[in-house]
Amino acid sequence: MNVAQRITVEDTRHADALRFLAADAVEQAQSGHPGAPMGMADIAEVLWRRHLSHNPADPTWFNRDRFVLSNGHGSMLLYALLHLTGYDLPLDEIRQFRQLHSRTPGHPEVGLTPGVETTTGPLGQGLTNAVGMALAEKLLARRYNHPGHMIVDHYTYVFLGDGCLMEGISHEACSLAGTLGLGKLICFYDDNGISIDGDVEGWFGDDTAARFAAYNWNVIADVDGHNPAAIDAAIFQAKSQPAAQARPTLICCRTHIGHGAPTKAGSHEVHGAPLGTDEIAAMRAARNWPHAEFELPADVVDDWNAVEQGAARQMLWQQQYDRWEARFPEDAKELTQRLAGDIPDGMLQALEELLDNSTALHGNIATRKASQIVLEAITPELPGLFGGSADLSGSNLTNVKSSVWVNHHGQGNYLSYGVREFGMAGIMNGLALHGGFIPYGGTFLTFSDYSRNAIRMAALMKQRVIHVFTHDSIGLGEDGPTHQPVEHLSALRVIPNNRVWRPCDGEETAIAWQQALQRREGPSCLVLSRQGLMPFTREKAQREQIARGGYILQDDAQAQVVLIATGSEVGIAVSAAASLREDGIAVRVVSMPCVEEFFAQPQSWRDQVLPPALPRVSIEAGSTWFWRGLVNNGTAIGLDSFGESAPAAQLYDYFGINPQAACNAVHALLEQAS
Amino acid sequence: MNVAQRITVEDTRHADALRFLAADAVEQAQSGHPGAPMGMADIAEVLWRRHLSHNPADPTWFNRDRFVLSNGHGSMLLYALLHLTGYDLPLDEIRQFRQLHSRTPGHPEVGLTPGVETTTGPLGQGLTNAVGMALAEKLLARRYNHPGHMIVDHYTYVFLGDGCLMEGISHEACSLAGTLGLGKLICFYDDNGISIDGDVEGWFGDDTAARFAAYNWNVIADVDGHNPAAIDAAIFQAKSQPAAQARPTLICCRTHIGHGAPTKAGSHEVHGAPLGTDEIAAMRAARNWPHAEFELPADVVDDWNAVEQGAARQMLWQQQYDRWEARFPEDAKELTQRLAGDIPDGMLQALEELLDNSTALHGNIATRKASQIVLEAITPELPGLFGGSADLSGSNLTNVKSSVWVNHHGQGNYLSYGVREFGMAGIMNGLALHGGFIPYGGTFLTFSDYSRNAIRMAALMKQRVIHVFTHDSIGLGEDGPTHQPVEHLSALRVIPNNRVWRPCDGEETAIAWQQALQRREGPSCLVLSRQGLMPFTREKAQREQIARGGYILQDDAQAQVVLIATGSEVGIAVSAAASLREDGIAVRVVSMPCVEEFFAQPQSWRDQVLPPALPRVSIEAGSTWFWRGLVNNGTAIGLDSFGESAPAAQLYDYFGINPQAACNAVHALLEQAS
Repeated sequence: MNVAQRITVEDTRHADALRFLAADAVEQAQSGHPGAPMGMADIAEVLWRRHLSHNPADPTWFNRDRFVLSNGHGSMLLYALLHLTGYDLPLDEIRQFRQLHSRTPGHPEVGLTPGVETTTGPLGQGLTNAVGMALAEKLLARRYNHPGHMIVDHYTYVFLGDGCLMEGISHEACSLAGTLGLGKLICFYDDNGISIDGDVEGWFGDDTAARFAAYNWNVIADVDGHNPAAIDAAIFQAKSQPAAQARPTLICCRTHIGHGAPTKAGSHEVHGAPLGTDEIAAMRAARNWPHAEFELPADVVDDWNAVEQGAARQMLWQQQYDRWEARFPEDAKELTQRLAGDIPDGMLQALEELLDNSTALHGNIATRKASQIVLEAITPELPGLFGGSADLSGSNLTNVKSSVWVNHHGQGNYLSYGVREFGMAGIMNGLALHGGFIPYGGTFLTFSDYSRNAIRMAALMKQRVIHVFTHDSIGLGEDGPTHQPVEHLSALRVIPNNRVWRPCDGEETAIAWQQALQRREGPSCLVLSRQGLMPFTREKAQREQIARGGYILQDDAQAQVVLIATGSEVGIAVSAAASLREDGIAVRVVSMPCVEEFFAQPQSWRDQVLPPALPRVSIEAGSTWFWRGLVNNGTAIGLDSFGESAPAAQLYDYFGINPQAACNAVHALLEQAS
Repeated sequence: MNVAQRITVEDTRHADALRFLAADAVEQAQSGHPGAPMGMADIAEVLWRRHLSHNPADPTWFNRDRFVLSNGHGSMLLYALLHLTGYDLPLDEIRQFRQLHSRTPGHPEVGLTPGVETTTGPLGQGLTNAVGMALAEKLLARRYNHPGHMIVDHYTYVFLGDGCLMEGISHEACSLAGTLGLGKLICFYDDNGISIDGDVEGWFGDDTAARFAAYNWNVIADVDGHNPAAIDAAIFQAKSQPAAQARPTLICCRTHIGHGAPTKAGSHEVHGAPLGTDEIAAMRAARNWPHAEFELPADVVDDWNAVEQGAARQMLWQQQYDRWEARFPEDAKELTQRLAGDIPDGMLQALEELLDNSTALHGNIATRKASQIVLEAITPELPGLFGGSADLSGSNLTNVKSSVWVNHHGQGNYLSYGVREFGMAGIMNGLALHGGFIPYGGTFLTFSDYSRNAIRMAALMKQRVIHVFTHDSIGLGEDGPTHQPVEHLSALRVIPNNRVWRPCDGEETAIAWQQALQRREGPSCLVLSRQGLMPFTREKAQREQIARGGYILQDDAQAQVVLIATGSEVGIAVSAAASLREDGIAVRVVSMPCVEEFFAQPQSWRDQVLPPALPRVSIEAGSTWFWRGLVNNGTAIGLDSFGESAPAAQLYDYFGINPQAACNAVHALLEQAS
């Protein structure tokens, strides 16, 4: 046996370890996707054993290479890799694949399983997160590396399939990655020609290599995905690009789905169903694999183990880091704070200062403008804050004087994402997952529809990502019903672990920003007006209550009714209250900028703000369904139909969202009660 | 003056009529987007005066060319074209641009303005609708044309900008259009290098021509968008492709945004703001346009008018049609019915037959399976029914024996859309808008997030589009939280004019299909289970009540409590009721497959089903917020957090959505009341 033969045989055994773990686990669960793990096993073997820089004993090591399985249904491939290389994922967890409370759920979940970098399953989004991670690396490297001191220097690797490439978000993310020249992003396309409906020829005729070349990617076409030497050479080519002109790399790997399954390989049957005991037995025979299920040969297990290598790699980096820290202590302090995700005291002070002293913030301004005033004050104090907009910077007012546009400088703290709402949201998730960034990005509220599943993913992954949604209602006026959100507030509020803030003036906007920045455990949506809004004066205690999501803004002794409103409709509630007082009715006005936060408060607070006995009228220029659960037998004033194109003030009257309607509702309720 | 010069001068005046109407209308409204209309005026002039086959007097003429303004913010271009060519859109309407109840809203709205083919504004979707229209034309042509009888034979033209091309949906739609070879789709790319954030160079570096070539499009690059002869030649090239190999065409037109504005052309300032009176005055001088605002020279007005030409075109077609009708009366009858959108009696009978006699439908089956049984029965009876799935045919069970896959045959009644949920939804909207089709398409409910804004657009446009959303809850089991919908039912229900059906067994599934097919005025979402569900027996009267959205499924004399449930949770309610009866509690069980339909019923029906005095418990494996508005002070059992990866039965118990929880809730409520 010559050396080349020996290597081939050995490589097959290492890759086969992945194949059999995947096949056995799916068989045991009687549920799952063996096809992708078996098809990509050879690629995974080469990448993970020869290239990936990681430390299984410390999955949080900052400079590790990131690995993203964008085709997340192939989760068993990732679990097998993590298990074999020595992460805290014992064989018992593999046997518990897809069972309750295991660390091996159906799709990979970040935070649950050590070594999983992002939660994947909804196709195209893992790839997009990876673009965010590669961007994060590039930005941090530009900011913190110095000649001879390369402390940020890692790759981001992605596995992806036909599904990811068909999804629109792949276009958004990859087009932007090419424009930004993210040279350390290396993607492996599992080109197996099969998707769930069968041979992709009928619905996916793209010349993917040409498509990515059009995005300014480094495309390595026609690689045999079962030939380790070819895969290895492609990775070296990707890594050997001159840094200054480096482009993201797509390695197009021709593979067989379910490679190794004697009769089912190459067919869509192997995509998402167990192989069956007969097929697995036949595969054991065909691949010369005389081991029982879940059993692996000791030498293969030894070869896979990356714990020692990983520790050595991290130690070498740590030495570099220590030298860098000694030489650049200010940088080190800042980076440490960024990676910890802490909010500097200076930023909170800047915010307090603004609340106490800014006349601009307390003027009759749109809350989108108030948001910009806040950003002006805090951006210099928060180096990890990373802004942007989906081509609406001047409308969202997300751009401030201290914003440096990455697009034009190659480094900075602001990105014009282009007209790519979903891509922006997915890239922001990647920035947050990477660490070192608190991303925020703007678009119109109505286009939260486009980015919605990425907001959901941020909530599921418990990532601090801030969405700035302006033009938040019919109050945007003439752009008409395509641009006027109606149901969007409700639809965002029902996403678990999401927070929706709809402030009514500058003070509430500042507090909303503060809360969003301090909320580490999930995303926040700041929903802001296009039009100017009347500011309110608050006692110091009241200002502090804003953070509770709902509080008493105005109160009469022995109030007979509570008006509850959010955002631009708080002004309507206050006007209505004034009229009602003239009619001798005592009124409480509750501002509720964040319903979810209010409902997370103790019952005592909720009852204090909304006494159970008092009738309630809610006012919000959007779906009333959501509010019906809160007003009980009271009245929810809102809009359950589409808007119209006209100046805003006319629309409010036309749709009956005005002080008069609120007064009428109160009179009707009080008469009913008497 | 030679002929070429004369033509150029004349052409400029005709295009300038569009420019000045757009500039004047935006100025008058003090709101709108003059940049795109002015930049694309020359292209529009060539297309509409030399190529577009339409009849302003009959905007519903079936064989007209379709024109889609995908960059819908340039609405004034379309309004100017419609006004000038003779549609029922008088100058007074142009003067009322963006005002309440005008026919000239901020973005074009189909059904409101004659000649507007689709509502555009959310970028990328108009282009996608157009792909659906071109597909509709191709399918109808294949089906109904015969040698010498070409009664379906029109083009679909699209104007689009950088924004449409950055959006991910453009990838989904155009990749599929290329694969399907939609040769009569001709798109004009307004390549002006500017988007709202400024010069696109920083965020949009695609080689768009190469990208579309990779999609197998006919790309005509580098056309001067202000040179009528070049534009004309490009259109001729697109139309002169041999039919058998024809591909969709992208004509890349280099233009200046706001072309004609002396100082602002070429800048993003002109994108979305009035030019200002000074700039318009300067433009009048520079373009030698000595006419007051909204005034047009009589000869230009005459030249633009297309009423006579249009009538002649339609008459010629009508003669062809009459010959075809005489020769192929059965085809004519079928096409007429399809274009009218009528549901044939045969189909309704097939459904009745199924309800009366099918044992399969009444078995213990998943509602996705029940849906397939319905589709098996009705598909042969409904030639306009056009199915599909976003690469989940075998999971959604959208494919039936009489499905003929267009992908493989070039004609048929079923499309595997690939992993393109948003694209599928947008293409379905286009099929419905074109006429002749009732499209339905499947994906998992969780991915309704991806297609959400297209569902909204179908609702806004009042289009009959049917979404089949399977795997509708934690009941899908091991795929875990990325795939388990929680908030999606609520989020879909709040879209105005949408209908969400979540049937509990085969009978309800059949009625849900019937209702969705008969609902002409908007989209319906059929939300179906992966897992098998217990069937219920109903009186004939009860079966008829299903269509009312909510009805009494089981009732005890003098019921003390109402259990309300949908879909897979109806079985839980029925089990709970049985237990409660054993405890001596009289229970009513209400099945509510369509909440919106139930709330559209008269108050008397609602009170009959849900007597105001009876305490209520709702059970649905999803967000409870929505139900709180319905149970009043009762209890909403559901799930407000993310799911988990595990077998379905375990998850229902783990999350406390089971008969025991319902019984506990009832006991607590009754104790509270007593």
